[in-house]
Amino acid sequence: MSSSFGKNIIVTIFGESHGAGIGCVLDGFPPGFRPDFNALSAFMARRAPGSAPGSTARHEADAPEIISGIFEGRTTGSPITALIRNADHHSSDYADLAAVPRPGHADYALSVKTGGANDIRGGGHSSGRLTAGLCFAGGLAMQYLEARGIHIASRIVSIGGTKVEGETDAAGLDAAARDTIDAARREGDSVGGIVECTVTGLPAGYGDPIFDGVENRFASILFGIPAVKGVEFGSGFAGSALRGSQNNDPFYFDDDGKVRTRTNNHGGALGGITSGMPIVFRVAIKPTPSIAKPQQSVNLRTGENCELVVKGRHDACIVPRARPVVEAAAAVAALDLLHAPATQTCFRQD
Amino acid sequence: MSSSFGKNIIVTIFGESHGAGIGCVLDGFPPGFRPDFNALSAFMARRAPGSAPGSTARHEADAPEIISGIFEGRTTGSPITALIRNADHHSSDYADLAAVPRPGHADYALSVKTGGANDIRGGGHSSGRLTAGLCFAGGLAMQYLEARGIHIASRIVSIGGTKVEGETDAAGLDAAARDTIDAARREGDSVGGIVECTVTGLPAGYGDPIFDGVENRFASILFGIPAVKGVEFGSGFAGSALRGSQNNDPFYFDDDGKVRTRTNNHGGALGGITSGMPIVFRVAIKPTPSIAKPQQSVNLRTGENCELVVKGRHDACIVPRARPVVEAAAAVAALDLLHAPATQTCFRQD
Amino acid sequence: MSSSFGKNIIVTIFGESHGAGIGCVLDGFPPGFRPDFNALSAFMARRAPGSAPGSTARHEADAPEIISGIFEGRTTGSPITALIRNADHHSSDYADLAAVPRPGHADYALSVKTGGANDIRGGGHSSGRLTAGLCFAGGLAMQYLEARGIHIASRIVSIGGTKVEGETDAAGLDAAARDTIDAARREGDSVGGIVECTVTGLPAGYGDPIFDGVENRFASILFGIPAVKGVEFGSGFAGSALRGSQNNDPFYFDDDGKVRTRTNNHGGALGGITSGMPIVFRVAIKPTPSIAKPQQSVNLRTGENCELVVKGRHDACIVPRARPVVEAAAAVAALDLLHAPATQTCFRQD
Amino acid sequence: MSSSFGKNIIVTIFGESHGAGIGCVLDGFPPGFRPDFNALSAFMARRAPGSAPGSTARHEADAPEIISGIFEGRTTGSPITALIRNADHHSSDYADLAAVPRPGHADYALSVKTGGANDIRGGGHSSGRLTAGLCFAGGLAMQYLEARGIHIASRIVSIGGTKVEGETDAAGLDAAARDTIDAARREGDSVGGIVECTVTGLPAGYGDPIFDGVENRFASILFGIPAVKGVEFGSGFAGSALRGSQNNDPFYFDDDGKVRTRTNNHGGALGGITSGMPIVFRVAIKPTPSIAKPQQSVNLRTGENCELVVKGRHDACIVPRARPVVEAAAAVAALDLLHAPATQTCFRQD
Repeated sequence: MSSSFGKNIIVTIFGESHGAGIGCVLDGFPPGFRPDFNALSAFMARRAPGSAPGSTARHEADAPEIISGIFEGRTTGSPITALIRNADHHSSDYADLAAVPRPGHADYALSVKTGGANDIRGGGHSSGRLTAGLCFAGGLAMQYLEARGIHIASRIVSIGGTKVEGETDAAGLDAAARDTIDAARREGDSVGGIVECTVTGLPAGYGDPIFDGVENRFASILFGIPAVKGVEFGSGFAGSALRGSQNNDPFYFDDDGKVRTRTNNHGGALGGITSGMPIVFRVAIKPTPSIAKPQQSVNLRTGENCELVVKGRHDACIVPRARPVVEAAAAVAALDLLHAPATQTCFRQD
Repeated sequence: MSSSFGKNIIVTIFGESHGAGIGCVLDGFPPGFRPDFNALSAFMARRAPGSAPGSTARHEADAPEIISGIFEGRTTGSPITALIRNADHHSSDYADLAAVPRPGHADYALSVKTGGANDIRGGGHSSGRLTAGLCFAGGLAMQYLEARGIHIASRIVSIGGTKVEGETDAAGLDAAARDTIDAARREGDSVGGIVECTVTGLPAGYGDPIFDGVENRFASILFGIPAVKGVEFGSGFAGSALRGSQNNDPFYFDDDGKVRTRTNNHGGALGGITSGMPIVFRVAIKPTPSIAKPQQSVNLRTGENCELVVKGRHDACIVPRARPVVEAAAAVAALDLLHAPATQTCFRQD
Repeated sequence: MSSSFGKNIIVTIFGESHGAGIGCVLDGFPPGFRPDFNALSAFMARRAPGSAPGSTARHEADAPEIISGIFEGRTTGSPITALIRNADHHSSDYADLAAVPRPGHADYALSVKTGGANDIRGGGHSSGRLTAGLCFAGGLAMQYLEARGIHIASRIVSIGGTKVEGETDAAGLDAAARDTIDAARREGDSVGGIVECTVTGLPAGYGDPIFDGVENRFASILFGIPAVKGVEFGSGFAGSALRGSQNNDPFYFDDDGKVRTRTNNHGGALGGITSGMPIVFRVAIKPTPSIAKPQQSVNLRTGENCELVVKGRHDACIVPRARPVVEAAAAVAALDLLHAPATQTCFRQD
Repeated sequence: MSSSFGKNIIVTIFGESHGAGIGCVLDGFPPGFRPDFNALSAFMARRAPGSAPGSTARHEADAPEIISGIFEGRTTGSPITALIRNADHHSSDYADLAAVPRPGHADYALSVKTGGANDIRGGGHSSGRLTAGLCFAGGLAMQYLEARGIHIASRIVSIGGTKVEGETDAAGLDAAARDTIDAARREGDSVGGIVECTVTGLPAGYGDPIFDGVENRFASILFGIPAVKGVEFGSGFAGSALRGSQNNDPFYFDDDGKVRTRTNNHGGALGGITSGMPIVFRVAIKPTPSIAKPQQSVNLRTGENCELVVKGRHDACIVPRARPVVEAAAAVAALDLLHAPATQTCFRQD
């Protein structure tokens, strides 16, 4: 089992939903950087429960304690460890999940994998709560990138299949989206959606052909976000319906003599390498599997099919809370990309 | 630059389109396996130029020479190296590409990355030709998996935005798809498509939560195939429009007492771990950027915008040839997954 | 900066000597194992300050808090995180070290590397205190190995150049060694030594030729222990003085029909692969650089050579405390080796 | 099985002693470098059979064919592949080795590992011949380092336990050493030795604490050289007999205001990080196990102990031929170190 991402900036996520705590170790972060911890808290708050319409009522302080890697307000270059204690959990809500796996959750697969030794409470290590650690790491990475002119932003493209086109609130939802979520919640159900994210300011020439390109790296971390079931770059799936003459992005020199493309169907990466245009990608987020409606499942103890009613507090839509996680993942991937082994770029100065 | 994939089964791809040759090193393949080299050749032939309607006229023997790792017809457990010589290339066709990058190709990004030292001929290391090495590795992996009851199959879902619904030929195309491709070719243009791939027979319990799950691993290698711009699992992007109650796959015991799901919207992986259901994914393949139509580009030597006509032989549609590459990538990812460090599964027998 | 070891069992060490705490994340540990936490504490106590003659007077509870990876007394298969709070430190002792690096310490090199952003107090991330995290991970690994018949033991071969040949105490020292250490302490000086470690019970056939062999893996983690400056296997450096006919270990069948060697000059690994004989290695541990005697150094602020007197509490000999760290490192390396991707051994059963 | 080394510069070694050929893939080498291929051949010739007193009579062209990664005389930044054909082998000499493993060789361990599927001829993938690939990669790395003021040199410290103190020939042997080797050869025996290697010119600040330091990385590749059974840095094992006040290296400012140490007992690395002083290490090379004298072994087919006479041509001493391999390994490790992810050093310029 490997809960680490990255080659140059390595994020390791640890913890279980209802254990002592969760957190992350961020190894390889450049030394001498002075994070804005208030801004980091504000970023992490966007992911926290209760932060968005349709989110779970579970309240947690979620304030990370920094165990290592910061000295006198600056990064030291050694691993940065953040610990977030678990506080408000109702483990008894989950008591019978060991026998009856929740549809759409990792329960069954994880149980087979571990021979039943996994921490079943709240999904254990597979819980969406673990993404708080990723947000800590990504929030730091984002600040570092910002200081170098690299910006990450996201928007909700659709909720439950309906495009978000109206005026949006802080969570990224318009009126129709909020209605869609409310309707699902009232029926004890849930809805998913699509998030688009953009990374601007990355210079051309980063990333490696074939297996270590921009798309490989970003997809590799993005699929680490629970509920993400699809990732596409630039024109993506829709681009497969275009002609080459439509999908190809013409090059031109802009007023500053910089090479750019007139369109960005390639989504910022050509042959796996940054083109200097914004990296643009979309992720498909499935409707959260935690729903109040009765569902069909199996009882692994009795060997019989059964009905399951999942108790506990559920998000009717996790898409707004997933947005900062997507941004965090993009930030980590972008920083890992930037910190790739210095070859031509760095050594040219010799 | 890292041209390797895998943790347990490591594929390294080498070569340039118009250099001495291309190939791969496959490290970690189990010893004692007796490959069917005729079947391997047949598999690789599906990817070879000229093998499908709309494919380039470039003819190459593409017969791999095995340099190492096979002894008396069996794998030795040490790295398997295959070398495919380059034979039939018209380098002069590509002479001016160093100055004028082709839209939609890696030329510009790679040139920035390498300070202009890359082999520009035919895309060099970024050429689709490099996938022959992946097909060699994946073809071997597929045979090994077959022998263990794991099967990989694929189909073309759509070409140029039109669903493939009629009777298909060996390349996976129906009459409408062939017409779509022919129309594009006549206009000096190209079309893309979507390929769906299924891996059946993988037991439940393989893969790791968070960053090393089934989706992360598969996406990581699939985005290594040139022209792939999107990857989705199970219900994927469409699933983001469903309700949780629709998208969740109910568990049940089948007649053999095996846990299965009634639907497979999860695409075979829950929380990154195999569920025992088939792994199902789709990849979006962009229209090949090599088109005969004049395009806008830049002349990096003169600093002026210019028109570019790409000479040479082009596929009007690479989707049929991409199919075996997708299967090969899936086979390598599946074998890497199966050969993950032995924990519970293996040690339980102690 | 990468503070992680291992391919299959991954240990990540975090923390700084005088920060909030230190610890480790152990990823890939098999699920379902029930550690003996009392035995683990006893093992870790062997490394703790004050545990052996000549060790520093710094007292710390060093009781690890388990943050994740254990549920109902068993390992869950997800990352095991241990946190050890720092309690008793006198940071003012180290105030001027930022300007004047201690000879034999990482201060200067680390300061160059980080541009001066490293946590200078007590050596920061380079402190020997960090090995407590390694002992936690290694202690767990050792228990797991024990349960599978694999045993790890060590002895002190020499202290300050004098062989340990008499009756030894719990710390592994004989009377002469204790005298050697006392003499050094009285003079404000320190002594080093050599530790030998043996891993018995590993079956033949583990490890990989060339770069991933037994010796490579063990050396890779052993040189992660501060003060280790040499590693040799079997007859090692002395073996280079022998004839091949003396150094080669004759094979024979033992009474159980098992292949063994009559001598063990190869130290348990042939061509990087376990032979079934015990793995035997020795590590050279330099005299701890922290001494009370005045030393020559440089003042990086003033640019002048200067004299340095290192205040604080120092071990006159860290070899006894290094012993359990060597064992811990061996245990982690051995477990990583055992958990290598399952090839022939595991799949043969299919 | 993993035959690759490195994080940033990755060397993959492939081939078997008596298969079609051997070689290497060098991934991550900086683009735009123009190698001196004559110098590379000369370097590789130092390792070739017959190049030194006491070496095997096997003659091979050993001229590497470059398959990829070089375009118009310059490195392209994509993987550099070199192929060395096997030509002159007498496979029948090794026919019975499958049943009777050679003492001191990998035969038995490899056979257990692979279930008997390994290529037994000449040691297969474990043969010392594989180091030709490492010499190709290391020779390139050495040229690149030279151009940046980093020099690698080695000397033979001792042969068969006798110090090399007299005037040395091109192979690094003095008269006494040659006599030692001759005596062993006449008796159908072999001798080992110790090689010391120095890397000068590496700036301070490279390498990472704990598991990814200079010593860890160098040891990790050095133990990949067949017959290396010990590695020590600076004062190494002898240093463990010194007092801290003797072994600590005092810092001072040299005439150029550069921080240096008066002695170099630390061998160029403090806390795993380069100090700016030369990296100095020694490797213990066991007497080559291939000897003409009859030896005791086992017959794995009959289950009986037996006598073995190894036919074929053997080196009485491989130390002179191992010297360039040690240098090559050092060059690869040094380049990998230099090309570590750019953190402070590179980004400071932003």
